Amino acid sequence: MPHEAIIYFGDTARVPYGTKSAQTVQKYALQNARFLYEKGVKMIVVACNTVSSVALDVLPAIVDIPVIGVIDPGARAAVKLTRNKRVGVIGTTATVKAGKYGQAINALDPDIEVYAKACPLFVPLVEEGWIDSAVTEEIARIYLSELSDRQIDSLILGCTHYPLIKAVIRRVVSDHINIIDTAIETARDVKRILRAKGLIRTGHSPRRRFYVSDFPQKFEEIAARFLGKPLEDVTRVALDDPCP
Amino acid sequence: MPHEAIIYFGDTARVPYGTKSAQTVQKYALQNARFLYEKGVKMIVVACNTVSSVALDVLPAIVDIPVIGVIDPGARAAVKLTRNKRVGVIGTTATVKAGKYGQAINALDPDIEVYAKACPLFVPLVEEGWIDSAVTEEIARIYLSELSDRQIDSLILGCTHYPLIKAVIRRVVSDHINIIDTAIETARDVKRILRAKGLIRTGHSPRRRFYVSDFPQKFEEIAARFLGKPLEDVTRVALDDPCP
Repeated sequence: MPHEAIIYFGDTARVPYGTKSAQTVQKYALQNARFLYEKGVKMIVVACNTVSSVALDVLPAIVDIPVIGVIDPGARAAVKLTRNKRVGVIGTTATVKAGKYGQAINALDPDIEVYAKACPLFVPLVEEGWIDSAVTEEIARIYLSELSDRQIDSLILGCTHYPLIKAVIRRVVSDHINIIDTAIETARDVKRILRAKGLIRTGHSPRRRFYVSDFPQKFEEIAARFLGKPLEDVTRVALDDPCP
Repeated sequence: MPHEAIIYFGDTARVPYGTKSAQTVQKYALQNARFLYEKGVKMIVVACNTVSSVALDVLPAIVDIPVIGVIDPGARAAVKLTRNKRVGVIGTTATVKAGKYGQAINALDPDIEVYAKACPLFVPLVEEGWIDSAVTEEIARIYLSELSDRQIDSLILGCTHYPLIKAVIRRVVSDHINIIDTAIETARDVKRILRAKGLIRTGHSPRRRFYVSDFPQKFEEIAARFLGKPLEDVTRVALDDPCP
């Protein structure tokens, strides 16, 4: 969808969400969605597995546009790919505890066994830039040995940060395991929904605007690591400021 | 000070602070200090190296009671202990970037060389409970090799989480290095200040109340790890709620 204008909000002042309670993540997700909605967007993608897991249900109450998360697309891809009906999911503590991938997969095929494992150190390792270090590989081996023992044939990367260490994860799991990047599946879903609603944009030059709640330490470095190029047009906004 | 009543606030909804900008940490520190002040405390201890480094100066503007951080006590201990005048400091990215330990040490003795190193993975490792694992030791070796090369004879643990992995740190640095836990030095300072102001409490049975902004995933487990016993009397409060 090269012609779409994208407005991105990153709650850098309050991340990470993956260790927080569902109640707090819901509160933040509502603030974040309201912010984007007031910018006049036509659709919201909750591009965070933790928010998709614990707060997706509360958002339609405050916005009247399509809102999609990353769980259903990732689950659908796993159902399509698995042959032996044994699927692994890795994610934050909150995502694993919520169990939404298992529910979504079993809603499509109740015979599939889903094994989930929280990998809380992966996010800080990526943020530290240790994306191809021996330590990261050793930690991946520790976290993933349990899933390998379950003889899964498909593994969902259930956290936005994990695709950055996909090469390391690839090295510690069997060659035959499908590694599923939910971002790609989610983008396909966005296109399908926009097309179905006649909302696909054509012929405009796209605009990308980035909003963050903080410019954290090493922000430029980490952002560039994700995007593969430097960020442009970034504005800091405060969502939780005291009353005006 | 066994008779003192302690009111503790942990901003569990917005931690970690160590990766965030000084501006955001200052905003949160002001909210946190106001919360404690309104509880009627006689003194505030900023028991966080990041807040002590980047926000201690802004707090006296809103409270008229003594406020102390952990930097000065830790710096004084290092000045007292070093023989070769080469001191190492480890802490979060924000603490190291602020450079307050170096300033405090050099204010007491300008001849001391201070070498600081950010160790961003230590906090998540402690939160994950890997306080005595081979991986933690390897990561400590990577972070600390630079300081060992500098031939420091004293090392300040400049983050509240680090004393929990003191045994691992001990193993990867030379035996002769003094490891300084700023918490102990800070407690001594608190006693000195309270005594000087005639505010020491005697003969009461102490009360401890804990307030947190979130009950995060694994909260009880992590809190017990720090305190050495289960938490009692914990209340969740919201500091950043929308306007009433």
